[in-house]
Amino acid sequence: MKTGLRTHTCGELTINDLNKNVRLCGWVQKVRDLGKFCFLDLRDRYGITQISFRTDRNADLYEQARKLGREFVISVEGTVIERESKNPQLPTGDIEIMPETLTILSSAQLPPFLIENETDGSEELRMQYRYLDIRRPMVANNLILRSQVVKAVREYLDGLGFIETETPNLIKSTPEGARDFIVPSRLHPGTFYALPQSPQILKQLLMVAGMDRYYQICKCYRDEDFRGDRQPEFTQIDCEMSFVEQEDILQTFEGMMQHIFKTILHIDLPTLPRLTYDECMSKYGSDKPDLRFEMPMVDLGEIIKGIEFPVFQQALESKGVIVGLCATGAGNFSRKQIDKYTDFVKEPHRGLKGLIYLKINDDGSIKSSIDKFATPEQLQAIAQKCNAQAGDMVFILADTKSKVRKAGGDLRLELGKELNLINKNKWSVFYVIDFPLFERDEETGAVMSVHHPFVMPNMDDWKHVDSDPTAVRALCYDMVMNGSEIMSGSIRIHRRDVQDKIFSYLGLTEEEKQEKFGFLLQAFEFGAPPHGGCAFGLDRMVMLFAGGETIRDVIAFPKNSNGRDVMLDAPASVDQDALDMVGIKVK
Amino acid sequence: MKTGLRTHTCGELTINDLNKNVRLCGWVQKVRDLGKFCFLDLRDRYGITQISFRTDRNADLYEQARKLGREFVISVEGTVIERESKNPQLPTGDIEIMPETLTILSSAQLPPFLIENETDGSEELRMQYRYLDIRRPMVANNLILRSQVVKAVREYLDGLGFIETETPNLIKSTPEGARDFIVPSRLHPGTFYALPQSPQILKQLLMVAGMDRYYQICKCYRDEDFRGDRQPEFTQIDCEMSFVEQEDILQTFEGMMQHIFKTILHIDLPTLPRLTYDECMSKYGSDKPDLRFEMPMVDLGEIIKGIEFPVFQQALESKGVIVGLCATGAGNFSRKQIDKYTDFVKEPHRGLKGLIYLKINDDGSIKSSIDKFATPEQLQAIAQKCNAQAGDMVFILADTKSKVRKAGGDLRLELGKELNLINKNKWSVFYVIDFPLFERDEETGAVMSVHHPFVMPNMDDWKHVDSDPTAVRALCYDMVMNGSEIMSGSIRIHRRDVQDKIFSYLGLTEEEKQEKFGFLLQAFEFGAPPHGGCAFGLDRMVMLFAGGETIRDVIAFPKNSNGRDVMLDAPASVDQDALDMVGIKVK
Repeated sequence: MKTGLRTHTCGELTINDLNKNVRLCGWVQKVRDLGKFCFLDLRDRYGITQISFRTDRNADLYEQARKLGREFVISVEGTVIERESKNPQLPTGDIEIMPETLTILSSAQLPPFLIENETDGSEELRMQYRYLDIRRPMVANNLILRSQVVKAVREYLDGLGFIETETPNLIKSTPEGARDFIVPSRLHPGTFYALPQSPQILKQLLMVAGMDRYYQICKCYRDEDFRGDRQPEFTQIDCEMSFVEQEDILQTFEGMMQHIFKTILHIDLPTLPRLTYDECMSKYGSDKPDLRFEMPMVDLGEIIKGIEFPVFQQALESKGVIVGLCATGAGNFSRKQIDKYTDFVKEPHRGLKGLIYLKINDDGSIKSSIDKFATPEQLQAIAQKCNAQAGDMVFILADTKSKVRKAGGDLRLELGKELNLINKNKWSVFYVIDFPLFERDEETGAVMSVHHPFVMPNMDDWKHVDSDPTAVRALCYDMVMNGSEIMSGSIRIHRRDVQDKIFSYLGLTEEEKQEKFGFLLQAFEFGAPPHGGCAFGLDRMVMLFAGGETIRDVIAFPKNSNGRDVMLDAPASVDQDALDMVGIKVK
Repeated sequence: MKTGLRTHTCGELTINDLNKNVRLCGWVQKVRDLGKFCFLDLRDRYGITQISFRTDRNADLYEQARKLGREFVISVEGTVIERESKNPQLPTGDIEIMPETLTILSSAQLPPFLIENETDGSEELRMQYRYLDIRRPMVANNLILRSQVVKAVREYLDGLGFIETETPNLIKSTPEGARDFIVPSRLHPGTFYALPQSPQILKQLLMVAGMDRYYQICKCYRDEDFRGDRQPEFTQIDCEMSFVEQEDILQTFEGMMQHIFKTILHIDLPTLPRLTYDECMSKYGSDKPDLRFEMPMVDLGEIIKGIEFPVFQQALESKGVIVGLCATGAGNFSRKQIDKYTDFVKEPHRGLKGLIYLKINDDGSIKSSIDKFATPEQLQAIAQKCNAQAGDMVFILADTKSKVRKAGGDLRLELGKELNLINKNKWSVFYVIDFPLFERDEETGAVMSVHHPFVMPNMDDWKHVDSDPTAVRALCYDMVMNGSEIMSGSIRIHRRDVQDKIFSYLGLTEEEKQEKFGFLLQAFEFGAPPHGGCAFGLDRMVMLFAGGETIRDVIAFPKNSNGRDVMLDAPASVDQDALDMVGIKVK
């Protein structure tokens, strides 16, 4: 990294460089003035090197140095010498620089927060001065990690003959579930481009074009409300392959994850387990369970039959389910804690009527909220079925299948956190397969795509499509890491007749089909290969590797939860001229 | 490239694979039916393999095969056998497949144009069916070439410690010369994001953030009128480095070009020549001359003094220039051809009053349009000065400096093409340095940035800034390849006081400075390192490598010259709902 202004970076000098004349540049991390001498920590992206100024060698230089403020940018020329008191924490900790010259390249105001990993700045303040926030090594390292992940991805895909191809960002609005951002056209006033929610259709057209293997690491745009950890622009590793079956894709991208794990974490990731959607939902109440801990929901339908507890009877009669959840080590939960979880499952979006508990005492006896309805033997049978030991707690949930799954999945995750069951050093990566093709809107009963309308049905199930569309499985898969969906994909429809039929099931009229997807349907008439692919959410994946809490941690200049870039102050109003030019008016 | 549907691609089987049982997938390139047998050329991205169907082996299969239309997608299983008549043009030309099964994966309508390199489709038609156009090997190869160039760039920059960092695309409108595309915000109605014209300011902030070395291969957006070969979205290789001088950047990116040339073309590109802006303009009348041929403009100011030709006298009196241009081998130009070039330099945007010629006859005598004013000795002296030989033609241009440069540069290029002087096998790559910092608007006389307002002045010239601002050189450089500017960059201002002064020279008020660039000026107060960088136009660079005529040749889904994507039919009108949502109205 030698340049005209420096011979070395602040991270590379060691005992092997003794007596060399060097020139370093960087930021003043801090100055410790000890009266007759002062130590200056000089920082750049590569590390920290100590510069020692001594009155007995150069009193002028010492005077200049002690007055330097934090974050001044300076250049120092001098000689590498051995330190008297070494710092084994630092790669450069054996040496220091005895300076001959000191040049201030830029002065600095006192930064609004501490430029260290442990900082006193609020997130809002750090975002406003993001260029200072990035100076904190943990933020810079996240950005470096991101670039390394991207590099590993490219290495792997390039090696398999994937062609990185850019698709356009000024495209046509095509409804893919979320709202499009639109861009008024000046040359065609009154019309708009849309920013892509994903390159889905374009990559399918690249397959029709015979490109065979495509990838792109690209920005996607969704104008959503910012519930959860979302950004209006986010980055996707977007891939597509021709002449493949689902198995080809699962293996290819398992290989990619293994390559990333090996390169980034030096971990040999084993073959990814494959769970069916039904298995995930029935055992963990989620299609993206965090399997760094177990705690499955155990079906108690059979065992419970003899217990004349009204909630159970209601659940059984209404074809609902009754499941147990063994919270390891939760036997000592207080009444208050149990009430908290009861309230948790009763929250309106979960909607259970209550929560039954069985506390397994140290002596093996059981105390339960259904003591009055169940015999000790029945309680023991439940505990045994749930694999509960002394000191554990079993929670029982009973209601309709969808409510129990939702509440049980959420409760499982909540208990996992509370009981510290999540092993932070463990990586849980697996595939979920056999998603249903369709689901029904709970309010209207209308049939909707679970993923998107381009997913190929599992032809084994296609015969049920008219009688029971939601029973048709899709050739569709997700990859889940530590409880987050990091990839989603499918085999796509490549036949016009099938695509047309799917659009019809989704309620599109002939006009809508033609207007929205006419070019795709037409493309399928000119020889489309069987194809499929997937997309990884890069931000989320890197966040998990970085151990971050939000994807903002791994984005150089993120928007806040309100969609604003507080550093740039965007979005902002624009001149009337600019609006006139594109023929629009603010209402 | 083995998958569940194929054992090999159509490009890999050779004589070494004889007797293997294989399964191939691809598109029917053509079927030659010879009565008792037919040959089918099966095509994919990797190549073409011949399948031979014979009635004496399998009459049914032969019947199916001969009915296949062009561009049907099929799968064939069979045995690799040696061909009777080999095709040395084809890597797979020694073998063919004796098929056992044939499966139609997709049928195809007759394509609207011939899917071969030499096609009968107009550009408009090919753009409408771009997914068919890409099937033509030369288009697919351009996209593959593009991905290889990008890969070589990344290899090189990764190796030098550059961190690939994504900057946001929904940013704030900051005037950089062209018009911004704007994106209405739904969450903040009445306000707009802007799509970046380049990540200029954001990459400078990454330097302030200490990232030291940054690159990004990113889309940029300019809402310009489509004169010339432009696209509303284009791709830039965007780079920035800290603690550098101009020399560091010139060497780093010379190295990058050498790496690309070596990797892609297997050519050792020598050290890049460096021409000053003045040299370029005075010798070639352009800051991006095509130096695959010479033909410099030769100053004739001294020699011409004795010739009493009114145009020369006017030019000399008005401090204009008189230059000669030796058109090698043009001595046989007809009167009509000379008139054509005379009209060419007289076109309004060039504005010369005429063109003088000296025809060097085979016997060395000279016929000239100024025979009446100049002695044969004077004409010989001009010819000698211009290095003209028998059979050449010297054109003389006389007018103001700017008109002569413009017209002379254009004429030089036109003659180079006409006379076939441009060696298509030669690569001309060089740097232009020492650009002026400012230029004056010809109409208003106002001072404007030649590049952009963030360019560092050459401090040697800074003393002239008040007396003669256009005499101040900038630390600014372009890279020119075969007559196209493929890269532009500069050392940036990193001091608030200098940046502030430059904004003032450009006529910005304090309010405008604050509103448009407040966050940049503020960032410079917290310790900004000296930094600089550049951006390469990827589309143009790849186009030159591909030997293409327009950047549309190397873009998967380009817009037409009217800014439309005719395949997607974008831009298009959007629902009133979508407009209401973002609070705008079409006027």
